[in-house]
Amino acid sequence: MKATILTIGDEILIGQIIDTNAAWMSQNLTALGITVVERITVSDEHQAIKNGIKYSLSKSDIILMTGGLGPTKDDITKVAIADYLGVGMEFHEAVYERIKAIFAPRNIPLTSAHKDQCYLPQNVEILDNSMGTAPGMMWHHEGKLIVSMPGVPYEMKAIMKEKLLPKLAQRTDRKVILHKTIMTAGMGESSIADQIEDIVDNFDNEVSIAYLPGLAQVRLRITAQGTDEESLQTQLDKAVADITSRLGDLVYGFEEISLQETVQQLCIEKGITIGTAESCTGGYLSHLITSISGSSAYYNGSAITYSNASKQKMLGVKRETLDSYGAVSEPVVKEMVDGALRLLDVDVAVALSGIAGPHGGTEDKPVGTVCIAVGSHGVIHTRTILASKDRNKNIAYASNKALNMLRKYILQMK
Amino acid sequence: MKATILTIGDEILIGQIIDTNAAWMSQNLTALGITVVERITVSDEHQAIKNGIKYSLSKSDIILMTGGLGPTKDDITKVAIADYLGVGMEFHEAVYERIKAIFAPRNIPLTSAHKDQCYLPQNVEILDNSMGTAPGMMWHHEGKLIVSMPGVPYEMKAIMKEKLLPKLAQRTDRKVILHKTIMTAGMGESSIADQIEDIVDNFDNEVSIAYLPGLAQVRLRITAQGTDEESLQTQLDKAVADITSRLGDLVYGFEEISLQETVQQLCIEKGITIGTAESCTGGYLSHLITSISGSSAYYNGSAITYSNASKQKMLGVKRETLDSYGAVSEPVVKEMVDGALRLLDVDVAVALSGIAGPHGGTEDKPVGTVCIAVGSHGVIHTRTILASKDRNKNIAYASNKALNMLRKYILQMK
Repeated sequence: MKATILTIGDEILIGQIIDTNAAWMSQNLTALGITVVERITVSDEHQAIKNGIKYSLSKSDIILMTGGLGPTKDDITKVAIADYLGVGMEFHEAVYERIKAIFAPRNIPLTSAHKDQCYLPQNVEILDNSMGTAPGMMWHHEGKLIVSMPGVPYEMKAIMKEKLLPKLAQRTDRKVILHKTIMTAGMGESSIADQIEDIVDNFDNEVSIAYLPGLAQVRLRITAQGTDEESLQTQLDKAVADITSRLGDLVYGFEEISLQETVQQLCIEKGITIGTAESCTGGYLSHLITSISGSSAYYNGSAITYSNASKQKMLGVKRETLDSYGAVSEPVVKEMVDGALRLLDVDVAVALSGIAGPHGGTEDKPVGTVCIAVGSHGVIHTRTILASKDRNKNIAYASNKALNMLRKYILQMK
Repeated sequence: MKATILTIGDEILIGQIIDTNAAWMSQNLTALGITVVERITVSDEHQAIKNGIKYSLSKSDIILMTGGLGPTKDDITKVAIADYLGVGMEFHEAVYERIKAIFAPRNIPLTSAHKDQCYLPQNVEILDNSMGTAPGMMWHHEGKLIVSMPGVPYEMKAIMKEKLLPKLAQRTDRKVILHKTIMTAGMGESSIADQIEDIVDNFDNEVSIAYLPGLAQVRLRITAQGTDEESLQTQLDKAVADITSRLGDLVYGFEEISLQETVQQLCIEKGITIGTAESCTGGYLSHLITSISGSSAYYNGSAITYSNASKQKMLGVKRETLDSYGAVSEPVVKEMVDGALRLLDVDVAVALSGIAGPHGGTEDKPVGTVCIAVGSHGVIHTRTILASKDRNKNIAYASNKALNMLRKYILQMK
């Protein structure tokens, strides 16, 4: 079964929003063995939407549309679908009752825009939206499926998970595509490719590799594609095992696990608590760690010290150390680790101080210079990296480098 | 001039990465008066890329391709372009010299993959890449332009800003499309639509509005489209002025300004320093504030207190307050503000404590409950919100609510 994702919205074409929905939809369709053959984004215009539906149906068995279903006046997707299908609009009382039930507890009065939301193209199969007012909709058309969902990410996700994916799972007749992703941190794409060149050259015919570089990370996606699932699985397992063994502790996990999830597993496994002290990364490292549910079990907190005074007051960094070496120096991040261990009462702490940019660089310490320290009472490792890209890239890059140092530090602990 | 953005990569179609490039490209093309008529994503296969080029050229005068140009073996975009154009490949010594110059200072040896990068389809015009090894490329073909750039975001951006956009600016013969975006925080999409319905109904013919809801924010994009720039500007200005005056302090700025940038302007204007104290948002609020260059001038830091013990130790929250009201309560965030004012030595502090989820909710305090306090010595405002979406949504939503409370607090300060 082939699918096309059709996204509607001028706000995407003029670049006002980033389309994060399509990636999530693709992942979930792929997991069902449905191949996403194309993604296409068209304008909010009646004719563009109609053409988009026609083009998408020429490429695939199912089209998933998002966008253009909110309660305000810029919504024309429904009308274009009705026109494409050659049907009229119908009022759905059940949809209206759901909207009323959503707003009643919050004392928000219904507007005429909400009533307009209840007129849907005929022959629709409604896919209930547990997170918002605009329902998901589906039509069977000439042996194919047309699905339309709101563009608000959590609403679209709820509709897909609860309603659409279960229906699609029943219809797929699976072609065998197996993926496995190896997550690495600590070496660049080209050098990794060089290290595993002989393994890749000797891959079985049905196996392939893609290198997906990220910030301070490279993902290796191994794919086995064919007809015999058992043999594909054997080939895939062998390729993954060979690469993993060659790359050693550069590999921090598999599939879409993040460095912070790997750190979580290690902390729980070893019964270790951690804390952070951040300057240039300004809370981003802390955010990565706490973005995972359950982090409060091993993460006690952070001192975000964005001034020299707060480094001294919160973390006890010595005035002389700041004066002699500057705030961006290995001696300072070492004292930040010491301070964080005491202040947060944790087993291991990691600290960063650097120049995120775009201003504040010097000849000795250009923009992108970041000092990182990780350690427990007694043994503290320090390192200075040079990121040198833009401010928010530097922040994310340095935070990931710090997470990888933290991972390696905990790995070698008893 | 019409453009299509053609993105290449199975990693996008299977949903492994989110395509953030296209939004940035769209913004920059739109700013030049170039209309992005479609965006399309195709697979890493030779035939799919060729078809994608053909389809895109049928819709537009220029196609901008990204992806598939890195140094590893999954790169086939160049070959597909050469095939489409009916030309061979040529080695470019200048490209090789640039790659050597990049790696020499880091002592990273060149691999054969780097040499392969220097073979490019004939008749190419090279667009230098100041941020990486793979060059941007451009071909003139039957009166149209084909551009191919690497998919790594900062490399693509550097090529566009430094090389491509200046070239395109010379070629455009501008049709008049004027946009202005009004940024609001504090009220939902439907209620705003209701409040300004009469203004929108009386818009001039050439003016339109789109509602773009975000987390705790709604952007209103006003567009005026036509031929007479002066008259369009007058119409647009009138629409923006009417809406802004109606919505009052719900409007925090214009164009793509963020709440944290508005807070920055206010802090600098009024000479105020700020600090934060975070529990459930785990550093995300601090990250938003410090994601802006220059934030160290007014932001001193944060105490991320992810445990009761750290709330007591770092912020001096009283044991009795935690016991009587629980960590997620207005009395606790009030004491967190008091503590942060002292600890960080700032004029205004904001504090949050809540249940980010998905676990830890109770009947009284369900997942998504977040208490926020903002204040200076003497006057502290508190508020409890219910976000109730997923963990990372809650974190972002609550952080934005806190920023908006901070903005309003500083607004009324002398």
